[in-house]
Amino acid sequence: MKLLEEKIQKDARLLEGNIVKVDSFLNHQLDVAFLDKLAEEFAKYFSKRGINKILTIEASGIALAVLLSKHMDDIPVVFAKKAKSLNIGDDVFTSSVESFTYKKEYTITVSKKYLSQNDKLVIVDDFLAEGMAMKGLIDVAKQAGSQILGLGVAIEKGFQKGGKFLRQEGYDLCSLAIIDEIKEDGIVFRK
Amino acid sequence: MKLLEEKIQKDARLLEGNIVKVDSFLNHQLDVAFLDKLAEEFAKYFSKRGINKILTIEASGIALAVLLSKHMDDIPVVFAKKAKSLNIGDDVFTSSVESFTYKKEYTITVSKKYLSQNDKLVIVDDFLAEGMAMKGLIDVAKQAGSQILGLGVAIEKGFQKGGKFLRQEGYDLCSLAIIDEIKEDGIVFRK
Repeated sequence: MKLLEEKIQKDARLLEGNIVKVDSFLNHQLDVAFLDKLAEEFAKYFSKRGINKILTIEASGIALAVLLSKHMDDIPVVFAKKAKSLNIGDDVFTSSVESFTYKKEYTITVSKKYLSQNDKLVIVDDFLAEGMAMKGLIDVAKQAGSQILGLGVAIEKGFQKGGKFLRQEGYDLCSLAIIDEIKEDGIVFRK
Repeated sequence: MKLLEEKIQKDARLLEGNIVKVDSFLNHQLDVAFLDKLAEEFAKYFSKRGINKILTIEASGIALAVLLSKHMDDIPVVFAKKAKSLNIGDDVFTSSVESFTYKKEYTITVSKKYLSQNDKLVIVDDFLAEGMAMKGLIDVAKQAGSQILGLGVAIEKGFQKGGKFLRQEGYDLCSLAIIDEIKEDGIVFRK
């Protein structure tokens, strides 16, 4: 998506370790008008599949998921929790996820009340790198017997393994921008 | 707000310790059409004050904040982080918050890039009980020199201290539903 690639070229800051910081618009400050355009693009891609629920993970996925819902007849959003609340209860699906950003493992949790075999899901997130969070979300969706009809991420780091793995597994992955290489003089996107 | 009170009466589950679980629509599964009505109500209340940014805290505040932004000319949202990311950098405002739900203390963090003395804020969150998270958000906003023009929460637990304290401090707090008492046969809302 040209618009997102331009925004990344303009606003992202590149840090050591191939970190692409887009916290000015995607995952700390939220440029809502801009994110709404990303959501619209997802909605176009995922329309007419009978999707009836959006699954994401706190925190940055929530903004995209909510805006996407607005473009998909307000279908419900469920966000997986990264920390176990004292009162979420025991009736939950869980999956263990290794975090690239935080360098630790955490458990994602979704209440069994909000995912079932009646759900036809699109799973969305802001970033896809090694794909650990996405695999965790797929795992809980499978435990619930939900159908996974598509995966959507704003930014895929194409030089890490997540996207390739998910496509090989047969998932229909819509990445709005795929970064293939981070060079000193700029970012190279996949054509 | 009548609509929210009815939704709480209908859908909330009451757990021991005065816990009001509204995770079917507000903070785990998100009923986007319904949350959009709450956001519209906030927008009416906070209009015409020159507010130019929405501050909230991950995770459940994000949905309300993003929907509110859609009703306020897409003004930017900034969400405070509860965990310190390895790459948020050191140039941050922080405040220590005691969590009622998770029974522990955590540090909230906002990058100095995204809050300044030019910001006229409304601060929103899903719940207000003891007001700890809200006080943390006010603290970082003050550190930044931002103006705080209003506070908005979906559900205030009126029998806990947060709301009373914030009003005494002179903040214009808009709570869409205030629970004054949780009885065995139902919830009593403030008139």
